[in-house]
Amino acid sequence: MSEVNLRIPGPTPLPPSVQEAMRRDMINHRGPEFAQMQAEIVEALKVFLQTQNDVLLLTASGTGGLEAAVVNTLSPGDKVLSVSIGYFGERFRTIAQVYGADIVKLDIPQGQAARGAQVAEALRAAPDVKAVLVTHNETSTGVTNPLQEIAAEVKAAGKLLLVDAISSAGCVPLETDAWGVDVLVTGSQKGWMAPPGLAFLSMSREAWAAHATAKMPHFYFDLKRHKKAMTEGSTPWTPAVSVYYALHEGMRLLMAEGREKVLARHQRVADLTREGLKAMGLRLFADPQFASNTVTSVYPPAGLNADDFRRQVKKAHNVVLAGAQGDLAGKVFRVGHLGYVHEADIAATLDAIRAELPLAVPA
Amino acid sequence: MSEVNLRIPGPTPLPPSVQEAMRRDMINHRGPEFAQMQAEIVEALKVFLQTQNDVLLLTASGTGGLEAAVVNTLSPGDKVLSVSIGYFGERFRTIAQVYGADIVKLDIPQGQAARGAQVAEALRAAPDVKAVLVTHNETSTGVTNPLQEIAAEVKAAGKLLLVDAISSAGCVPLETDAWGVDVLVTGSQKGWMAPPGLAFLSMSREAWAAHATAKMPHFYFDLKRHKKAMTEGSTPWTPAVSVYYALHEGMRLLMAEGREKVLARHQRVADLTREGLKAMGLRLFADPQFASNTVTSVYPPAGLNADDFRRQVKKAHNVVLAGAQGDLAGKVFRVGHLGYVHEADIAATLDAIRAELPLAVPA
Repeated sequence: MSEVNLRIPGPTPLPPSVQEAMRRDMINHRGPEFAQMQAEIVEALKVFLQTQNDVLLLTASGTGGLEAAVVNTLSPGDKVLSVSIGYFGERFRTIAQVYGADIVKLDIPQGQAARGAQVAEALRAAPDVKAVLVTHNETSTGVTNPLQEIAAEVKAAGKLLLVDAISSAGCVPLETDAWGVDVLVTGSQKGWMAPPGLAFLSMSREAWAAHATAKMPHFYFDLKRHKKAMTEGSTPWTPAVSVYYALHEGMRLLMAEGREKVLARHQRVADLTREGLKAMGLRLFADPQFASNTVTSVYPPAGLNADDFRRQVKKAHNVVLAGAQGDLAGKVFRVGHLGYVHEADIAATLDAIRAELPLAVPA
Repeated sequence: MSEVNLRIPGPTPLPPSVQEAMRRDMINHRGPEFAQMQAEIVEALKVFLQTQNDVLLLTASGTGGLEAAVVNTLSPGDKVLSVSIGYFGERFRTIAQVYGADIVKLDIPQGQAARGAQVAEALRAAPDVKAVLVTHNETSTGVTNPLQEIAAEVKAAGKLLLVDAISSAGCVPLETDAWGVDVLVTGSQKGWMAPPGLAFLSMSREAWAAHATAKMPHFYFDLKRHKKAMTEGSTPWTPAVSVYYALHEGMRLLMAEGREKVLARHQRVADLTREGLKAMGLRLFADPQFASNTVTSVYPPAGLNADDFRRQVKKAHNVVLAGAQGDLAGKVFRVGHLGYVHEADIAATLDAIRAELPLAVPA
């Protein structure tokens, strides 16, 4: 564990060998070493994403990946069902709006998940929808949508499915091809044991078909240019080479651990987090049935502001908790438990939180 | 010097302390450490760019920065004068085209520079042009446009000036405010002793005024969101934190050396490169009056393919030269001499090239 215990839902702490990997000398991103490194990363990502679809890497944050998903498959005026259960669902929606999509909203109260039946009903009410935007794991509330049941309804209705899996992929069960996800987006600083700077997308055959007629403008994020360049072993624009080094090492560690064990580890640390917080008398924000295995939202001790409380924990114990977004700011704080995280990190986090509880709260 | 002598015009080699800086533990990009780091980087960039304008950092390649320059200041249908002297001038133009600009072309043969008088004439012929797109340093041919005289004509005509200074800024004389550059774009992997992954833009008051009415769609690259987040000490989306670490150290080294000395060093290594290549009997591609101080394009020895020759130099001496783009591929090769580069790197490069010359060429 590093000196600071960084318990936010990204950037996540890095394994020492990943930090070390970034010291490598720069290479030509049009040369054979880069081509091999990128190919190995993509092969490993396909295992963790459970896909045979194209997987492309963009030099961008996850939000850039969301924009790429939208602009490469849609045209202005296309009707889109936007399923939002929080702040990041809103962001995905706003991107589609900015580029001229005609938005049909399905809004679920914060803390709850969207269900397949609700999505099916929304699609029956708006049969001319072309695509559905869904957040797999809502980082702002710590809720994981039941993507498999949602995807089943979207595919039964014959719609294109675009999924923000930024903070879920690699950490929680997710079967891109079996479930029918057409475009999946994730980012290097979440489950992948790497620093921020790269977004990854998978594109199904249906997504490529949509790309062929998509009229929302795109250049930097043009996935066709990315696919062509990848075929040649490179990227269309100069990539974040040092982040590739880190990701390559992160993927090596993940492959060595094995997908099943990585998912099981996330289940264990999430259970430990939730049980530990509840045992202190703290109240969790998310519906327990859909509580996220990568991030937990929790109310501060009664009478305290969440941001004051987490600053106190940082000052006293060097444990960095995350604030909340939008109208939850100050009302809840969040504990990240994804990527390079083990039981000891969570135990130390719980100790720090417990030590700062006011005496009124039963410990 | 590192074991491989990477002589391409980006990614450029990294100083050891920059490589070391990337090992730092991840931090919260919404916390005070990040805010201070970003503020210090921006202050140093303002010195090197000679500007009091806003300077914003994007997690993207330089091409993403070019897209940001276009979509934040223009609307579909706006008439734009696109001055192109090569491959990257074409790219800047294509971005504007993709987003619906009405392009007026000023094309200069490869190897030559655009002159102020030519730009003035083009503006007289198309008085309803709103903005002018210019490449300061055309990396594909090794030509530096006389930006000061071009800018004088653009500003005299009252047009917005968008400049691709990706491979010039920080290396060659460039006075953003004094010359009247409204939007300047550069990238971390060029003159800044850092790896790729970040693009920087400066935005003048006129550029912000144009932003207020610009209708080309943008979200990830929305500079207003970036400015707001920077005011709060952060970025709107998770930034490439490890590249920030590297850039912060690169800027520290550049500030310690001093802007005048950095520019003088680039002049010296460029002179050394050009004189050394000519002394071997090799022919340079660029008009000598406008030869770039950051990259030199050169014809291979007579009868040889440029790519075969540079592969031979790499194999025998571990000196990596760059190929050429577009219709110059195979016809010329390029020597990068920007960023962390000193006389010894160039001497070793010249030795390697000389050793591979066929006997027919006088040495």
